[in-house]
Amino acid sequence: MKKLAVVLVSGGLDSCVTAAIAAQEYELALLHVNYGQRTEKRELKAFEDIANYYKAKYRLVVSLNFLKEIGGSSLTDTQIPIPEYVLEDKEVLTTYVPFRNTHLIAIGVSWAEVIGAEKIFIGAMEEDSSGYPDCREEYFKAYNRLIELGTKPETHIEIVTPVIHMKKWEVVKKGAELKAPFHLTWSCYQNETVACGKCPSCLLRLRAFALAGIEDPLPYALKPKVI
Amino acid sequence: MKKLAVVLVSGGLDSCVTAAIAAQEYELALLHVNYGQRTEKRELKAFEDIANYYKAKYRLVVSLNFLKEIGGSSLTDTQIPIPEYVLEDKEVLTTYVPFRNTHLIAIGVSWAEVIGAEKIFIGAMEEDSSGYPDCREEYFKAYNRLIELGTKPETHIEIVTPVIHMKKWEVVKKGAELKAPFHLTWSCYQNETVACGKCPSCLLRLRAFALAGIEDPLPYALKPKVI
Repeated sequence: MKKLAVVLVSGGLDSCVTAAIAAQEYELALLHVNYGQRTEKRELKAFEDIANYYKAKYRLVVSLNFLKEIGGSSLTDTQIPIPEYVLEDKEVLTTYVPFRNTHLIAIGVSWAEVIGAEKIFIGAMEEDSSGYPDCREEYFKAYNRLIELGTKPETHIEIVTPVIHMKKWEVVKKGAELKAPFHLTWSCYQNETVACGKCPSCLLRLRAFALAGIEDPLPYALKPKVI
Repeated sequence: MKKLAVVLVSGGLDSCVTAAIAAQEYELALLHVNYGQRTEKRELKAFEDIANYYKAKYRLVVSLNFLKEIGGSSLTDTQIPIPEYVLEDKEVLTTYVPFRNTHLIAIGVSWAEVIGAEKIFIGAMEEDSSGYPDCREEYFKAYNRLIELGTKPETHIEIVTPVIHMKKWEVVKKGAELKAPFHLTWSCYQNETVACGKCPSCLLRLRAFALAGIEDPLPYALKPKVI
């Protein structure tokens, strides 16, 4: 019998490919978190479609209302506009949700401890991402230490980041190789029916598909030149 | 103007004294988390009473439903009985809620990042507690590293554990010295009106007051010999 792994699935490209990677070796326990982000409903649909595609045995959908209440991010506060361009410098984008990944992973760890999973897969990328501090390998290393110290001595739960050092176009390549269902994913920060093609998430995604030489199956309102 | 500190206030004895300690130096931002524990309502009342007593400027009450849903603890699952005796060995009690403190502190960090607080006070005790893994100094040290790596580079948020090496009777002494409102706190894991006097939390509390030579102002159904 396959061992169990929790996979954080936002409904986006990276987490979908991460689920495809985890599925090669593990029975999947898929976790999705709504945190009041603008495209919450569309992302939840993407999660459900991906979970059905992989026939995931365990599924958990959690709603965190407090991140929206706390605010401080253009993803959860519609008063702060989504930035239109990918910044070239190292400034953290306003789409950064304070300490978000810590919450998501902590839910994964609590769940893993109860259902007996030993791995938590997350599709974070260090270099080719939006520059969020909670997407770096060092951060996950520190988190693994926290898990070791903060859970029962008999449990051994570990975060796994299979795409951490990939470029996003390599993630697309990997996904294509593993037949990940790109058509079921959603990445746009702004819209829920036709992707905007302008927000940082759309731009990064479009560029990745272009660099990989693979067609993105999603509909876009605008397909800018991205390479 | 005083700097701002987030204090986690469960409504129990230790967090109340921790708030008293923080209030000496900081403006208080008090955080309370409901997580589906049996005595949720009574603890929320204790939080509100304590927040009023300290005239806390900022208050945040968050409800986490998923910890109850995930289960695995006698505190949130009424099918698992609360143990009646304090175990002498080092086994983790069934009242342990998987990875709970990680969630509570993460909420504090997200909030601190938005309101501009630099400290998160938590009333955890390492030696004289119920043996939960997420109450040890090593765990908080690892968490501080995670915060440093997982938040924006310009923020510097740190967990402070002023009672970590105190015995619980010393916490009572300290609280008495600072005029902490013991009469507003609640510790019982089992009941919401008259404390049971039998659960691990009541026993630890009663013993602490007895050792400190101070009268516990709360009503008990049963006052066993505790020293």
